[in-house]
Amino acid sequence: MVSHRAFTSAAARLYTRSLRANHPSLRFPISIRREFSAEAKAIVFEANGKPLDVLKLHTFPLPDLTDDTILVKFLASPINPADINQVEGVYPTKPPFLTDAVSSKTPVAIGGNEGAVEILDVGKSVTQFKPGDRAIMRHTLFGTWRTHAIAKVSDLTKIPFSSSEITAVQAATASVNPTTAYRMLKEFVDMKDGDWFIQTAANSGVGRAAIQLGRLWGLKSINVVRDREDIDDLKRDLESLGATKVVTDDEIKDKGFRSAIKEWIGDKEIKLGLNCTGGESTTNIARQLSTGAHLVTYGGMARKPVTVPVSLFIFKDIHLHGYWLTRWSDSHPAEKEAIVNEIFGLLKAGELKDVPVDEALWTADMHDQERLDVFKHAVATYINGARGRKQVLVHK
Amino acid sequence: MVSHRAFTSAAARLYTRSLRANHPSLRFPISIRREFSAEAKAIVFEANGKPLDVLKLHTFPLPDLTDDTILVKFLASPINPADINQVEGVYPTKPPFLTDAVSSKTPVAIGGNEGAVEILDVGKSVTQFKPGDRAIMRHTLFGTWRTHAIAKVSDLTKIPFSSSEITAVQAATASVNPTTAYRMLKEFVDMKDGDWFIQTAANSGVGRAAIQLGRLWGLKSINVVRDREDIDDLKRDLESLGATKVVTDDEIKDKGFRSAIKEWIGDKEIKLGLNCTGGESTTNIARQLSTGAHLVTYGGMARKPVTVPVSLFIFKDIHLHGYWLTRWSDSHPAEKEAIVNEIFGLLKAGELKDVPVDEALWTADMHDQERLDVFKHAVATYINGARGRKQVLVHK
Repeated sequence: MVSHRAFTSAAARLYTRSLRANHPSLRFPISIRREFSAEAKAIVFEANGKPLDVLKLHTFPLPDLTDDTILVKFLASPINPADINQVEGVYPTKPPFLTDAVSSKTPVAIGGNEGAVEILDVGKSVTQFKPGDRAIMRHTLFGTWRTHAIAKVSDLTKIPFSSSEITAVQAATASVNPTTAYRMLKEFVDMKDGDWFIQTAANSGVGRAAIQLGRLWGLKSINVVRDREDIDDLKRDLESLGATKVVTDDEIKDKGFRSAIKEWIGDKEIKLGLNCTGGESTTNIARQLSTGAHLVTYGGMARKPVTVPVSLFIFKDIHLHGYWLTRWSDSHPAEKEAIVNEIFGLLKAGELKDVPVDEALWTADMHDQERLDVFKHAVATYINGARGRKQVLVHK
Repeated sequence: MVSHRAFTSAAARLYTRSLRANHPSLRFPISIRREFSAEAKAIVFEANGKPLDVLKLHTFPLPDLTDDTILVKFLASPINPADINQVEGVYPTKPPFLTDAVSSKTPVAIGGNEGAVEILDVGKSVTQFKPGDRAIMRHTLFGTWRTHAIAKVSDLTKIPFSSSEITAVQAATASVNPTTAYRMLKEFVDMKDGDWFIQTAANSGVGRAAIQLGRLWGLKSINVVRDREDIDDLKRDLESLGATKVVTDDEIKDKGFRSAIKEWIGDKEIKLGLNCTGGESTTNIARQLSTGAHLVTYGGMARKPVTVPVSLFIFKDIHLHGYWLTRWSDSHPAEKEAIVNEIFGLLKAGELKDVPVDEALWTADMHDQERLDVFKHAVATYINGARGRKQVLVHK
C-alpha cells in the first residue's frame, strides 16, 4: 500500500496525463489548474448519530479518471431532510460506507443526495459530456457534500442551459422538491382546471413548487402555514407565486372556517391534500377535503403520526397515500428525466421562482476546520427550522 | 279526521277485502288471521339522543294494501352499529321522520335497517312475491324494528331458500356484514391464492365473514382480538371458521412479534388490512402490512381516530381507504343482489356459519311495555359490548 501523499501525487500525474491525452490541444484552463487537486474534501460520517455530533470533514484521494468516467467539481449541494435522516440512520436508503484505504481505515459515508456539478474532464470514451458542461445527480446516494468526484455517465443528468439562464443553486434544487410536487399533483387525482388542492407546510420547497405548478396548470390552492410574526409578508410572498389562499394552522382549525372555505371553492371540490407535517396540521386539512379526495403524505416535519377520524374514511371516502420520490424515480427513470428537463425550462422561463436559500460557502482557500464549521452552521440552521430557507453548500 | 279506532277498523276491512279480492279461493290461513291486525308495533324515536333515553314503543295504523304493495310481517331484525348511530344522530344517512296523522302528531322515525320478512299478502298487480315467500330488505332506511309493514316490490329481495334451509336470523344478518367483508376482500387488492390479510375485531360479524370468505377463496388471515378470560375458546372458535392465526392486541403490539409473523407468512405478503376499531389496535395492524398494502377502515368501535406513522405512508407505500357498504350498494344494486344471493347459497351449504346471536323475542301476546323492555335490554347489551354476539329482534 502506498502512502497517501504518494497515492494522490500518482493520481494527479495520471489525471494530468489523461487530460492531456484526451485533449491534446487543450491547455489547462486557469480555473481548473488553480483549484483542482487530486484530493476531494467531503462531509462524512463514520456512524449514524446526531448530525452535529457525527459529521466530519474528510479528505479523499480521488480515483484516477478512466476511459469511461468523468471528473466533476461540485457547484452546489443542498441539505435536504432525507440527507439529515440518512446521517441519523432513520432513512430506509443508506449511503455506502466505504474505506478509501489510504487516508482512513474506518469506512465513512459521504452525505448528501442532490447536487449540481461542473464537468472538469472526461475519459476518452465519454461522448455525452465535455469539460465545462454542467449536470445534476441522476440518482440519490451519490454523496454530494464534497468538492470533487469521479462519476460515471449514468450518474449525471445534463443541465441544458447556461449558468446565466439557470444558476447552480437553482439546478441543484430542481430534481427533488419540484419533481415531488409535480408528481403528487399528477399521480393520485385527475385534477381538472379549477379544481382545488390543500397543503400543509406550504412554505416548504415542495409547497412552493406545488403552488407554482398548480398556477401553471389552472389549479387553485389553499396553503396552510404556521402562524408567525411576519405572516402577512409570507402570505404576500406565497400569493405572488400563485397561491389562491394562504391560511394559518390556527385559522383553519377553527370550525367556523369551513364556511369561508366553502365560499372560496363554490361548486368546485378540494380533491387533493398534500401533507408534509403529521399531527394536528394534517388532521385539519383532512377535514377540509371533499368526498372521495386523496391525501398524500410526503414528509413528517412535525414528527407526529398522521391522525384521521374514522368517519372521514367511511363517509367522506377519503384515501390516504404516501409519496416517496426515490421509489418512483427508480421505477420511472425516463419520466423522471423528462420532468427534470421540463422544470429546467420553467426555471429558465422564470415560471418557477427560486426557493429562498441560505448559502453555506466553501472557498478554495478554506482550512478543513473552517469548511466543517460552515457546514455545521448550515445543519444547525436546518435543525432549528430555517424558517423556510433551504440550506445549500455552495463552492466558490 | 277519523279516530284511531275508526281508521284501523276501516283499514282492517279494506285489508280483508283486498285479500279476498286477490285470492278469492284462499281461506285465511289461521296463522295470518290470528296474528295480523291492521296495526303495527314499532320501535321509534322522536328525536336523536341516547338510544336508551329516546327509543319508544309506538303503535301505527298500517296503510291499506294497494294493487302494487305488499303486506309483510317481520321475522327478524338485527341491531347494527349503524342503527344505533342513526338513533344518536351521528350517522350520515337518516331515516325519515313521519307523522302517521292518526295516533300521533309528532313525527317519528322507525329504527333499524336490516331485516327478514314473510310476505302475508300482495296487491293484485304484484307478481314477484306471493304470500308465504320470505324476503330481506333491499335498501337501508326502511325501518325494520317493527312487526308489520306495507312494502313496495323494490323494497325487497327474495330469500330463495326455505326456512329449513336458511333461518330467518341467518337471512336477516346476511346483507350487511357478509357483503361488507366480501366487497372489502375484493375491492382494493387483487388477492391471490395464499395471500394474507390482517384484521382488527376479528370476532365481529364482518370479521367472522371475512375469515370464512378468505378460507373459501384460499386467503390466509391474521385475526386480532381483544384479550379476554376465555381467549383460548375464542381462538379455537375462529380457527374452526378458517382463521389461519388468531392473536390478541397485546401480543401483536410487542415488537418481537414481528418475527413470528414473518415466519408465518414466509415469502408471501400481507396485502390487506381490515380495520373496524381505530386507535392503537389499528396502528398495530398497519405496522404489520407489507410494502404497497392497503388498509381499509369500515368501523370505529374504539371511538378513536386512525393513527398511522408518516414513515409507513412514505417508505412502506401503504394506502388507507374507507368502506361504506351503503355507498357501494346504492351505486351497484345488481352486483349487491348477486352477492347477497351468493351469500344465501353459502349459508345454505353451511360454508358460512351463523354469527353468535342473542335473540330479543317479541311474541304476539306481549304488552307494549314488555316489547320496549325486551328491545331496550338488547340495546343495552349491544352498548355494553355484547362480546361479539349480535342482538336480533325476533318475532315469534
